[in-house]
Amino acid sequence: MATTISTEAPVVTLINVFTVEPEDQPELVRLLDEATETVMRHQPGFVSANIHAGLDGVTVANYAQWRSEEDFEAMLADPVAKKHLAEVASLAKVEPRLYSVVSTHGR
Amino acid sequence: MATTISTEAPVVTLINVFTVEPEDQPELVRLLDEATETVMRHQPGFVSANIHAGLDGVTVANYAQWRSEEDFEAMLADPVAKKHLAEVASLAKVEPRLYSVVSTHGR
Repeated sequence: MATTISTEAPVVTLINVFTVEPEDQPELVRLLDEATETVMRHQPGFVSANIHAGLDGVTVANYAQWRSEEDFEAMLADPVAKKHLAEVASLAKVEPRLYSVVSTHGR
Repeated sequence: MATTISTEAPVVTLINVFTVEPEDQPELVRLLDEATETVMRHQPGFVSANIHAGLDGVTVANYAQWRSEEDFEAMLADPVAKKHLAEVASLAKVEPRLYSVVSTHGR
């Protein structure tokens, strides 16, 4: 089911912006896809993740939803997730932030 | 209609992360909402915009969709849009990046 963005959804939003060397962008995308499927989506409170490749070639962004801030924090403390996060951090500068959706605008 | 994230959608994605002083977060949200309604959504190629307030109190993110990179670049050159962008830049550090969606993962 596709991720939808709504002020009503009972989620917190993680927007994580990664910066890499241009030659590492495909590898980072692969790593994030693999870790999402094998580790993240089985964590309590995971709702969705969406991997975006920057047109500039040096950024990758993950737009993800978690049930709550507590679920996200618990994931950060999970040993298997931590191993994955360390692997990503060895390849990219990582800037994770949690948000709530405050407004939506369509055409 | 709610924004949906899909690898199939014929859009480019703008993720713009703003950093502000904590006392300016509500004002930046207000400014982005107003500019989106009065200026941005009437520009050719605008698809959607979604304003997010950082739980840390010092970030704001806009997850927006445009029909094409060319439409986004044309907006940047529009005089009315430029006036708005300058107003935002006077309040916040701005980090806009364009992306394509490469993968989506649900629970």
